[in-house]
Amino acid sequence: MKHIVVLGSTGSIGTQTLDVVRCQEDMEICALAAGSNIVRLEEQIREFHPKKVAVWEEEKARELRTKVKDLDVCVLSGMEGLLELAVMEEADVLVTAVVGMIGIRPTIEAIKAGKDIALANKETLVTAGHLIMPLAAEKQVKILPVDSEHSAIFQCLQAKKEIRPHKILLTASGGPFRGKKKEDLEKVQLEDALKHPNWAMGKKITIDSSTMVNKGLEVMEARWLFDVKMEQVQVVVQPQSIIHSMVEFDDGAVMAQLGTPDMRLPIQYALTYPDRRYLSGERLDFETLTRITFEKPDMKTFYGLRLAYEAGTVGGTLPTVFNAANERAVSKFLARKIRYPQITEIIQECMRNHQTRKEPTLDEILEIEQETYEFIESRW
Amino acid sequence: MKHIVVLGSTGSIGTQTLDVVRCQEDMEICALAAGSNIVRLEEQIREFHPKKVAVWEEEKARELRTKVKDLDVCVLSGMEGLLELAVMEEADVLVTAVVGMIGIRPTIEAIKAGKDIALANKETLVTAGHLIMPLAAEKQVKILPVDSEHSAIFQCLQAKKEIRPHKILLTASGGPFRGKKKEDLEKVQLEDALKHPNWAMGKKITIDSSTMVNKGLEVMEARWLFDVKMEQVQVVVQPQSIIHSMVEFDDGAVMAQLGTPDMRLPIQYALTYPDRRYLSGERLDFETLTRITFEKPDMKTFYGLRLAYEAGTVGGTLPTVFNAANERAVSKFLARKIRYPQITEIIQECMRNHQTRKEPTLDEILEIEQETYEFIESRW
Repeated sequence: MKHIVVLGSTGSIGTQTLDVVRCQEDMEICALAAGSNIVRLEEQIREFHPKKVAVWEEEKARELRTKVKDLDVCVLSGMEGLLELAVMEEADVLVTAVVGMIGIRPTIEAIKAGKDIALANKETLVTAGHLIMPLAAEKQVKILPVDSEHSAIFQCLQAKKEIRPHKILLTASGGPFRGKKKEDLEKVQLEDALKHPNWAMGKKITIDSSTMVNKGLEVMEARWLFDVKMEQVQVVVQPQSIIHSMVEFDDGAVMAQLGTPDMRLPIQYALTYPDRRYLSGERLDFETLTRITFEKPDMKTFYGLRLAYEAGTVGGTLPTVFNAANERAVSKFLARKIRYPQITEIIQECMRNHQTRKEPTLDEILEIEQETYEFIESRW
Repeated sequence: MKHIVVLGSTGSIGTQTLDVVRCQEDMEICALAAGSNIVRLEEQIREFHPKKVAVWEEEKARELRTKVKDLDVCVLSGMEGLLELAVMEEADVLVTAVVGMIGIRPTIEAIKAGKDIALANKETLVTAGHLIMPLAAEKQVKILPVDSEHSAIFQCLQAKKEIRPHKILLTASGGPFRGKKKEDLEKVQLEDALKHPNWAMGKKITIDSSTMVNKGLEVMEARWLFDVKMEQVQVVVQPQSIIHSMVEFDDGAVMAQLGTPDMRLPIQYALTYPDRRYLSGERLDFETLTRITFEKPDMKTFYGLRLAYEAGTVGGTLPTVFNAANERAVSKFLARKIRYPQITEIIQECMRNHQTRKEPTLDEILEIEQETYEFIESRW
């Protein structure tokens, strides 16, 4: 039996994780954590019977306690709640599907407690990869990527662990505004940006995909996960989202993983690794599939991706600034407080305004996050 | 040091095998065999210093003995020569790059002697897969595919040996006559059929590619190599020859191997497996590559492929008939003795005329080969 803790269980990845667990007889949920959606969380509690749950907002946690008082479940709240879930003795693997840097501390504590990590939270490695990866190696825990791109790369690298990638070819759909130019982006409304051509995802990541900032975060994540240099990660626009990513080896062979856009596949692979199991759902059909196309990413229009390469190459605290600036800018755009092009402008301004520090500690990272938020609040 | 015997060293795969060996410091040629091209074989002897060589034609062997009498090399001939090379004590791996069923007996003897096989001779498994694969398992020798498609499938299956393929997606370029109809094939001249769109190969396999009989042989080969049913192997036309083949797993994930059309890659991988090493040459460039397209194979026009599915599904001696009929028909076409559409017609006629026997012994297989040749000589 595999005992699973899911942080962010009511979000897109979280609910799909539970879809996977529902079909597997040897997987059990021991804890769930959500932000504020206690209606869905209550349903999940009644179906999966976790021992503990955590709700980010204390008020919502209180509300939930009343709702589930007929059940034998402990309802926690805040960061304390997340940390308690992350180190539960019976847990084997922690699925980190929370959005934002909130995922870092629970991930670190889980690794210290020897839990494997199914990682769906990009920010963790983007901002603290230099802390997480050596810690995971020391504690001999697996960091299993759940992002479809990183899972694809991970699958391509399975043949022999010692064979290092020559180059990682990280595919991108190009988002809903592929082919558009800077002046077109001026007119983008929230509704336009929330329409992803291929993947149904949460709001924040959908906006990130449209700006290609998501791809930038993925490049930085890949650099840590697969121990390569930023320049070894090449973004390839593949608009149909059929190739989920590729790896080029020293002999010139390119391995690729292809599939339908179904996040349950990388989630299940992370939970059954190194095995594969049957998964229901649509399959790629090469009798009807006619083509896969490739384009170079337009880093002039989508310069958030260029900024990500800059942040990742400089390293230190700069990726934290990149990520925090984007996080806050996107939430302002979702609240209709800024225009679409301002998302990337804000990231750029924050990066220009920052003095990078090398090898930051976790406290410094969280401090820089706050400073970035404050800088944004003071300016926009 | 890896000691290598190459059967068919002056052909296309043979010379490329030597190109690979030339660049590796820990590989050594201990024997070479050729059909009749003693000019090239002499050059190879002077460069690679094998202990033994074999020439198929006795007269050519005598000629070669005179040419290389200044060297310490033993020149053998005929099937006896091939068999002696196949079991040389110092050899670790036998590269079988001879064309036709001539490769079967040396392969069997090499397996019995515990040598790994780098298999570039399709006919071996097509006609005697039911003998070869159990023998290889018993002797614990590796059968390492050298065909670019089978190497791709083999690479896709490396993650975990126990994970069985759900489906093999064997790619095909479609050859020079892709899109043509039956009436167009009536007009095909030898020169047209010898122009392959993507791969530079020997004459026989180039003709086989144009009729899609080659793909049929590959389907049968894949069935034995990867222990699947014929219906689990689906041919996907991919005209640019960039995807070298794919595997679909139970969870819906499709792994693919991509690359430039360079046979040195699968050859080197077979010789360095499970490692990968640097290989010079062109790489796939996703900045300039714009698309990969897919089509369904036209089994009505290229009904040789349909006949291969029939032969493989019925099994027994029928694949031998399919293969022998094609071998003889192609050599007649190369000699301008029959018209292009007659190649497939002859295969069909031979299959219709044959009473299939189940589980044939090696002697029966070789007998059926002769009978098929005689039937063809009596009719065309």
